[in-house]
Amino acid sequence: MKEKAWGGRFALPTDSEVEAFTASVHFDKRLYKHDILGSIAHARMLARRKIISAKERDAICAGLKEIGADIEGGAFTFRADDEDIHMAIERALTEIIGAAGGKLHTGRSRNDQVALDVRLYLRDEIADVLKLLARLKKMLLKTAKKEIETILPGYTHMQKAQPVLLAHYLLAYYEMFSRDQGRFEDCRRRVNVMPLGAAALAGTGLPIDRKAVAKELKFPALSENSMDAVSDRDFAAEFIFAAATVMMHLSRFCEDLIIWSTDEFSYVEISDAFTTGSSIMPQKKNPDVAELIRGKTSRVYGDLVALLTLLKGLPMTYNRDLQEDKEPLFDAVDTVKSSLSVFAAMVGHVKFDRRRMRAGAEGGFSTATDAAEYLVSKGVPFREAHRVVGTLVAYCLEKNKPLTALSLEELRRFHKKFDADILGRLAVESSVAARKSYGGTATEVVAKRIAELEKNAGR
Amino acid sequence: MKEKAWGGRFALPTDSEVEAFTASVHFDKRLYKHDILGSIAHARMLARRKIISAKERDAICAGLKEIGADIEGGAFTFRADDEDIHMAIERALTEIIGAAGGKLHTGRSRNDQVALDVRLYLRDEIADVLKLLARLKKMLLKTAKKEIETILPGYTHMQKAQPVLLAHYLLAYYEMFSRDQGRFEDCRRRVNVMPLGAAALAGTGLPIDRKAVAKELKFPALSENSMDAVSDRDFAAEFIFAAATVMMHLSRFCEDLIIWSTDEFSYVEISDAFTTGSSIMPQKKNPDVAELIRGKTSRVYGDLVALLTLLKGLPMTYNRDLQEDKEPLFDAVDTVKSSLSVFAAMVGHVKFDRRRMRAGAEGGFSTATDAAEYLVSKGVPFREAHRVVGTLVAYCLEKNKPLTALSLEELRRFHKKFDADILGRLAVESSVAARKSYGGTATEVVAKRIAELEKNAGR
Amino acid sequence: MKEKAWGGRFALPTDSEVEAFTASVHFDKRLYKHDILGSIAHARMLARRKIISAKERDAICAGLKEIGADIEGGAFTFRADDEDIHMAIERALTEIIGAAGGKLHTGRSRNDQVALDVRLYLRDEIADVLKLLARLKKMLLKTAKKEIETILPGYTHMQKAQPVLLAHYLLAYYEMFSRDQGRFEDCRRRVNVMPLGAAALAGTGLPIDRKAVAKELKFPALSENSMDAVSDRDFAAEFIFAAATVMMHLSRFCEDLIIWSTDEFSYVEISDAFTTGSSIMPQKKNPDVAELIRGKTSRVYGDLVALLTLLKGLPMTYNRDLQEDKEPLFDAVDTVKSSLSVFAAMVGHVKFDRRRMRAGAEGGFSTATDAAEYLVSKGVPFREAHRVVGTLVAYCLEKNKPLTALSLEELRRFHKKFDADILGRLAVESSVAARKSYGGTATEVVAKRIAELEKNAGR
Amino acid sequence: MKEKAWGGRFALPTDSEVEAFTASVHFDKRLYKHDILGSIAHARMLARRKIISAKERDAICAGLKEIGADIEGGAFTFRADDEDIHMAIERALTEIIGAAGGKLHTGRSRNDQVALDVRLYLRDEIADVLKLLARLKKMLLKTAKKEIETILPGYTHMQKAQPVLLAHYLLAYYEMFSRDQGRFEDCRRRVNVMPLGAAALAGTGLPIDRKAVAKELKFPALSENSMDAVSDRDFAAEFIFAAATVMMHLSRFCEDLIIWSTDEFSYVEISDAFTTGSSIMPQKKNPDVAELIRGKTSRVYGDLVALLTLLKGLPMTYNRDLQEDKEPLFDAVDTVKSSLSVFAAMVGHVKFDRRRMRAGAEGGFSTATDAAEYLVSKGVPFREAHRVVGTLVAYCLEKNKPLTALSLEELRRFHKKFDADILGRLAVESSVAARKSYGGTATEVVAKRIAELEKNAGR
Repeated sequence: MKEKAWGGRFALPTDSEVEAFTASVHFDKRLYKHDILGSIAHARMLARRKIISAKERDAICAGLKEIGADIEGGAFTFRADDEDIHMAIERALTEIIGAAGGKLHTGRSRNDQVALDVRLYLRDEIADVLKLLARLKKMLLKTAKKEIETILPGYTHMQKAQPVLLAHYLLAYYEMFSRDQGRFEDCRRRVNVMPLGAAALAGTGLPIDRKAVAKELKFPALSENSMDAVSDRDFAAEFIFAAATVMMHLSRFCEDLIIWSTDEFSYVEISDAFTTGSSIMPQKKNPDVAELIRGKTSRVYGDLVALLTLLKGLPMTYNRDLQEDKEPLFDAVDTVKSSLSVFAAMVGHVKFDRRRMRAGAEGGFSTATDAAEYLVSKGVPFREAHRVVGTLVAYCLEKNKPLTALSLEELRRFHKKFDADILGRLAVESSVAARKSYGGTATEVVAKRIAELEKNAGR
Repeated sequence: MKEKAWGGRFALPTDSEVEAFTASVHFDKRLYKHDILGSIAHARMLARRKIISAKERDAICAGLKEIGADIEGGAFTFRADDEDIHMAIERALTEIIGAAGGKLHTGRSRNDQVALDVRLYLRDEIADVLKLLARLKKMLLKTAKKEIETILPGYTHMQKAQPVLLAHYLLAYYEMFSRDQGRFEDCRRRVNVMPLGAAALAGTGLPIDRKAVAKELKFPALSENSMDAVSDRDFAAEFIFAAATVMMHLSRFCEDLIIWSTDEFSYVEISDAFTTGSSIMPQKKNPDVAELIRGKTSRVYGDLVALLTLLKGLPMTYNRDLQEDKEPLFDAVDTVKSSLSVFAAMVGHVKFDRRRMRAGAEGGFSTATDAAEYLVSKGVPFREAHRVVGTLVAYCLEKNKPLTALSLEELRRFHKKFDADILGRLAVESSVAARKSYGGTATEVVAKRIAELEKNAGR
Repeated sequence: MKEKAWGGRFALPTDSEVEAFTASVHFDKRLYKHDILGSIAHARMLARRKIISAKERDAICAGLKEIGADIEGGAFTFRADDEDIHMAIERALTEIIGAAGGKLHTGRSRNDQVALDVRLYLRDEIADVLKLLARLKKMLLKTAKKEIETILPGYTHMQKAQPVLLAHYLLAYYEMFSRDQGRFEDCRRRVNVMPLGAAALAGTGLPIDRKAVAKELKFPALSENSMDAVSDRDFAAEFIFAAATVMMHLSRFCEDLIIWSTDEFSYVEISDAFTTGSSIMPQKKNPDVAELIRGKTSRVYGDLVALLTLLKGLPMTYNRDLQEDKEPLFDAVDTVKSSLSVFAAMVGHVKFDRRRMRAGAEGGFSTATDAAEYLVSKGVPFREAHRVVGTLVAYCLEKNKPLTALSLEELRRFHKKFDADILGRLAVESSVAARKSYGGTATEVVAKRIAELEKNAGR
Repeated sequence: MKEKAWGGRFALPTDSEVEAFTASVHFDKRLYKHDILGSIAHARMLARRKIISAKERDAICAGLKEIGADIEGGAFTFRADDEDIHMAIERALTEIIGAAGGKLHTGRSRNDQVALDVRLYLRDEIADVLKLLARLKKMLLKTAKKEIETILPGYTHMQKAQPVLLAHYLLAYYEMFSRDQGRFEDCRRRVNVMPLGAAALAGTGLPIDRKAVAKELKFPALSENSMDAVSDRDFAAEFIFAAATVMMHLSRFCEDLIIWSTDEFSYVEISDAFTTGSSIMPQKKNPDVAELIRGKTSRVYGDLVALLTLLKGLPMTYNRDLQEDKEPLFDAVDTVKSSLSVFAAMVGHVKFDRRRMRAGAEGGFSTATDAAEYLVSKGVPFREAHRVVGTLVAYCLEKNKPLTALSLEELRRFHKKFDADILGRLAVESSVAARKSYGGTATEVVAKRIAELEKNAGR
C-alpha cells in the first residue's frame, strides 16, 4: 500500500477493508474528462497568477491530456488505493511529470473539485437530455400529423368517455415533454455555477482568480459563498426530480401502449423489432420495452429518495456521506437517457389500428355528453340534461343498443327538446368536430396546433 | 341518502361504506374559496357567451358568495353524501337559487374544475412561501451583520477544518434559501396555466371563452391540450419537491443548532420561549423546535414519494387515483409554511456564545492549512507542504500543544522555508483575514457581500 | 397560558407559535384509551410497591376512568396548551383529584409512556387487520368455489399466455394475503414488548415492578434495555411495511379489476353500489373504489418513507423528531383497514362474465404451449418444439385462424410427430385440465386446494 | 445477431438498441451458481420422471458444471445477445452438448426459473447477513464487558439527561441487532419456498415432480399457486426492508460516533486505520467510515422505494417490469453486508476516552432526576418534586455551580425534605447504581444481562 497524499499526520496505514469500503474510483472515474478539463483551467489560472510557472503549467496540461487519452483508450490502470478519480489522476500526473504534479492541487480541495466536476458533467448530460426530449417531441408531432384523422375513445377511469383524435392524445404528451424541457432548463441555471476556489470550505489565501476559471469553463456565474459551494447538492436532487418526472410521463404512455397491445384492445401493434418472446410460450410477443420503461421509473424514484435522504440533517459543510450522491445521479442520467432514446425509436415502430380505434370510439355511449350538450343548447339546465341522458343510457343498456340506433321518437320519449338534428350529432365524427373550445379535440383545433408547433420547431 | 347529481343511469344507490371511502369533502373543502372564485368567473363567461342569462348569472354569483360567507363563518353544513367540495357547493347553490344552480356546471367537468381550484390555491400558497423565505433571509442577513466579527470553527466531517465567520456561515443558508425562491418561482410559471374548459377531457362543444376566464382569474397562459389539462399533476409534484428542498435546508441548519446546543459545544443558547422541558428530568431544556423541523422534513419527503408513486403508470386521462393528490400537497404546504415561520422566529431568539465559538476555532489545528499555504507561497509544491504540516501536526499532538505555541526554531526543524512571519499567520484572525478569494470567508469579502445583499433586499 | 408541568427551570413562557408547532394533542389524542389503560396499570403497581397509597391509587384510577368516559362521550375539552395526550390527561386528573394526580407520573417519563401507548394501540390494530385479512380470504375462497368452472385467459406481460381457472387466479391472492397475515403476526411479536419503566432512558431508582405491569397489560415480554426501549420505533416501521405490502397486493388486484371493467375486456361488472358516475358524462360508471385503493397504496408508501427517513441518523436516545412517528403510523393503520374492508365488500359485488372470459381464453393462441408440450411428450427437444409451434403461430396469424381451426394435415406440415390426438389437446378445457403439476391450474388441483383451505379456515 | 430461442413467430430481428435496453445479463450473471444448481436439480427430476433420458441428464449436468467452472474461472464469455443469465447458460450448454441442451428447459419457464434463482441466492445471503449480525453482536458484548465501569452522559434531545454505563449504551444496540436477526429469520421462512414447476404461470402438463426438486434443493415448502409463484416478489421487498432497518440502526450508532469524535466531545478516538485525511487540510482525521455507513443507509431506502414502487399496480402475473427487481436487491445485499462487516471491525478500533466521558456525565445537572426521586421517596408528589428541582437548577445556573456543589442548607432552602443523605445521591456513580429497575443502567443489572447474553451466545 502506497502512502496517501494526506498521510502526513497518520501513524497507521488505512485498513484494507476500509480502503475498499471508502473508495469511489470505480464509479467516479466516469468524471475523468471533466476532472481533467477543470484541472487544466485551474493550472492555467495558477500560472497567470504566478502561483506556478509557465513551464509547470505546460507540464501539467500535457500530462493531464496524456492521462485523458490513456483513460479514453483503455491504457490507464486504476489502482485499488487510488481512492477516487481526483487522486488517481494526480497520482498518475506525478508519475509522468514529477514533483510539479504536486503543485496542481494548490488553492483547491477535493471538496470544490468534485463539485466542479459534477456540475461540468451534469451540464453536458442536461444538453443530451434536452436533445432527446426534442427528438421525441418531433417524433410525436410527426405521428400526430400522420394520425390527424384517427379517432379513438378517450378514457377517464379507463372507461370510455368521449371520442378524441389520436393526434390530440399524442400532443398531450408533447405538452408534458415540453414542461420537462422547461424543468431541465431551469435546473441548468442552478447547475451552471462555478464552485472552484471555495477550497475546503473557507476559500483560500492564495491569490487565485475564480472569474477567469469560470470564463474558461463557460460558467455564467460563480458560487457566492464558499461554505455553500462545497456542501450544495440541490442541483443534483433537482436533476433527479426532473428525470423522475420524465420517467413518470413515459410510464403513463407505456401503460397505455401495454393496454392497447392486449388482444382485447388491439389498438396498436408494436413491431417485432421492439418486442420479445417467451422462453416457454411460442405464441408470445411481449411489449417488453414499454414494460421496462414503466419499471425503470421506479429506480429513478429510488434515486431521488436516496439523494434527498442523504442530504437531510447533514451538518455543514462537507461530510463523507456526500460521496453517495454520485451513484443515484449517474443512474438517473443513464436511465432517463436510454429510456427516452429507445422510447422515441419505438414510437416510430408502433402501428395504430385505425379501424379498431374507430370502432372502439363508437362503444360505451361515448357521445352521451353530446346529447346532454344538445339539450343545454336548447335551454335545458345542464343538471337536468345530464339526468335525462343518464336514463337514456340506462334504457339503451337494457335494450342493448347504441345511442346512434335510437329513433327520434324514442329520444323524444325522454325529452321533448330532441329534434331531428340530434341524430347526426351522436356520431363520433360529429362529437369530435364539435369540441372546438381552445385546446379541445376538434380536428381544426388540433391541426392548427400542429401547424403552430411545426413553426416553433426550433424549440 | 340523496340522489347523486350523476345518478341518471344508476339503478342502485351507492353503498354507504363506499360513500365514506370515496368522499374527499373532509379535506378538499379547504379549496372552497378558490372553487367559488373559479365558478364566479365561469358563470360570468357563460353569461357573456349567452349560454346562461344575465339573471341566472346574477343569481349564481350571489348564491356562491352567500355560500362562501357561510363556509367562512362556520354556518355551512357539509353532508356525508356531498362527495367533494364541488358537489357540496353546487348542492347548496341549488338549494338557494333553485334550478338555475343546475346550469353552473355547463361546459365544465369536475376534472377541469378541480385542476383549476388546485392551481388557484397553490398560486396563493406559493406567494406565501416566497414571503416566508424572504422574511427568513432578512433575518439571516440582519444576524450576519450583527455577527460579522464572530469567528467559529468551520467543520468538514464534523472535524474542525478552518476558522470562518459566523456571518459567512449564515450567508451560506442565505444562498440556499435564495435558490429555493428560484425553484418556487419556476414552479409558479407552470402552476399559472388555466385548465378550465378542458371539460371531462376533450373540450366542449359549447361556445365557451377560455381566454376570458383566464383573464379574469389573472392567468398568463391557457392549457393547450384538454387531455393533458385534466391529467397533469406535475406542478403539484414540483411544488412538493421544492418544499422538500426547503425542509432539507432547514434540517441541516437545525442539525447544527442541535449540536451547538449540547453542553459540550455550548455555542448557542436558544431562548426559553423556543425550547421545552422534560416531564421527568427537571434540568432539561430541549431544542424541540429544531428537532421537530428536522423530523418534519421526513413527512414532506413522504408526501413527495406518495404523489410521484400515485402518478406512475396511470393511464390517460383522469383516474380516481388523482383524488389522492391533495392530502400530500396540503400537508407539504402546511409543513413548509409553519416550519419556515417558526424557524425564522427562532433565529431571532438564538444567542451565539462568541467567546466559546472563538475558543473552539483555536482548537483542532484549524490553521494548519495556513501553514501549508505559507510554504506554497515560498515555492514549496503543495503536496510537499501538506505532508510537512501533517507531520508537524503529529508532533503537536504528541507534545500536546497547539500550532501557535510552536517556536520558529521548532517550525524550521520541519521545513527551512518557515520564517519569522509565519508566527502571526497561525492565529485564527489571520487565517480568516487571509481567505479573500471571491466567496471566501475574509471579513472584507463577507462585509461586501452583506452590503450587496442589503442593496438588493427587494428580492 | 398555564404553567407547564416541566416549567420549573424556565424563566420565560413558551412562545405561542412554538406551542402550536410542537403540540401533538390534536393527533395523539387517539391514544387516550391506551394511555389510560397504561396509567391504571402503572398506578396499581405503584400502590403495590407502596410508592403511592391505596387511597391515592383509587382516586387516580377513578379519575382516569372518568376522563376516559368524558373523552369517549365528547365531554372532554382539549386545550391548546395541553401539548400531548399524556399531559392533557394528567392535567385533567389533577383538576379532578387534586395533588394526588401529581403522583401518577412517578417512576416514568413521557418517553416510556408514549412507547407503551403506541404498542398497546398497535397491538389492537394488528388484531383488527388480521381479522380483516381473514374476512377477505374467506370471501376469496367462497368466490373461488363458486367460480371453479370459470376459465379465463392467464396473462403475462398483459398478453394472453395460457388458460387458467378464475378460482386459481383468486387463490393466488389468497396466498398473498396469507403471507401478509404472517408478516403482521411476526410484527406483533416485536410490538408485544413492554417498555414502561425505562423512564426517561436509564430506568428508575424507585422500586417499581415492571413484570407486574407487563402481566396486567398482557405483554409476554419486557424490553431488556431502557435506552433501547425509549428510542425504538422499529415495530412501527415494520407495521407500515407490512401494511404497504397489503396495499401493494390490493393495488394489483384493483389494476386487474379496472382493466377487466373496460368496455374492451368486459370480464367483470362491478355493482352500481360500488361504482360512481361523472359530473358531466351521463353514461359513465367508474370503478372508483378500485382506483382509490390503487391510489391509496402510494400514501402508505409515503408513510413508510416518512418514518424510515425520520429514524435515519438519529442520535441516541429519544429526540423530539420521534413525535413525527405517529401521523404516518395512524395513516397507514386507517388506510389499510378501510381499504381491506371496502375491498372485501366489493369482491362480493363483482359479477364475472363467464362467457366473455371463456371467449377471451380462446384468443391469442393461448394453448400454443400445449402444442409444444405435446411434441415434447413425443420426444422432441423442447427448444425445437418451441420453434416449430412459433412458426405455426406465425402461419395462423397470416391465415387469420386460431390453432383449433388447423387440420391435422396442416399441423403435420410443421412437424411429423403431430397425430390425431393433438386436436383435442388445443381446446382451453384440455389445456387447463392438463396442468396438474402441484400448484397448477388444473381443476382437480384447484378443487383440492379449496377443500384443504376450507378445512384450515380457522387460520 | 443470433436467432433468439423464442424467435419462432418473429419475422424481424430485435432492434439492437432494444437488445441492449432489455438485457439483464450484465447484472443477473451474479446468479449463475444458483441458476446452475437449480438446473441440475431440474434435470435430475426430469430424468427420474423419464421426461429426459439418463444419458441426457448426465450430459446436461456435466455441461452445466463445466459452464459453472468456466464462469468461476473467468473463461466464460457473455454475449450481448445473451439477454439474461438463463439464456446465456442454455446457449453455452447447447454449444457444449448439442441438441440435448434444448431439453433442459422442458417443463419450466424463465418466470419460475428466475424466481427459484433469486430465492436460492437470497437464502445464502440471509445466512451471511445473520453471521455478520452475530459477529457484530459478539463484538458489542465483548466491548460492553470491557467498559462495564465506564460512565457517560445519557442524552435525550442531545441534552445531557442522566448518567448511564457505556456498556448499557452498547447493549441497546445489541437489542436492535437481535431484532434485526429476528426479521431476517422471519423473512427467510418466506424466501424458503420452492417455485419451480409453476412454469410460465399455470403449471405444466408434463409429469414433473416438484417435491423432489424441493427436497434436493433443501426447501421446506412448495409454492401453492403457480400464478402467485411467478409474480411474487414480497420476499425481496421484505429483505430490503430488513436491510434498511439494519442500516438505520447502524446510521444511529454512526451518528453518535461522529459526534463523539468531534474535538468538542472527544469521547472516542477512532484508529488511524479506520479514518482518512484531507487533500488540503493537513491536520484532518475524519470518521469517514461512520459517515459513509450513515450515507449508505439512504441508498438502501432508495432500493426499498424502487422495489415497492415497481410492484404497485402490476397486473397479474409476470410483467417485464419485474426484471428491475434485481439491481435494488443486489445493492441492498452488498450494502448491508459490507456495512456490517466494516462497522464490526471499526468497533474494535474505537478507543473510548473514559475520563472525558466521566467528566461529561458530571455536567448538565444530569442527576437532577435523582434529586426529584429523592423527594418522592420522602413522600413528595412527583410533580411537586419536579418543580422544586427545576427551580434548584435555575438557581445553580445563576450561581454557575453544579448540583453536587450545593450545601445541605442551600438545598433545604428549596425543600425541607432534603436531608444529609441527599449529598451522596447526586454523584454520577450513585445515580447509575440507583437505576436498578429491570432493564435499567445500574451496574449490577447490566452485568447480569451481559452474563445472560454470554450464556446464550449461540444465538
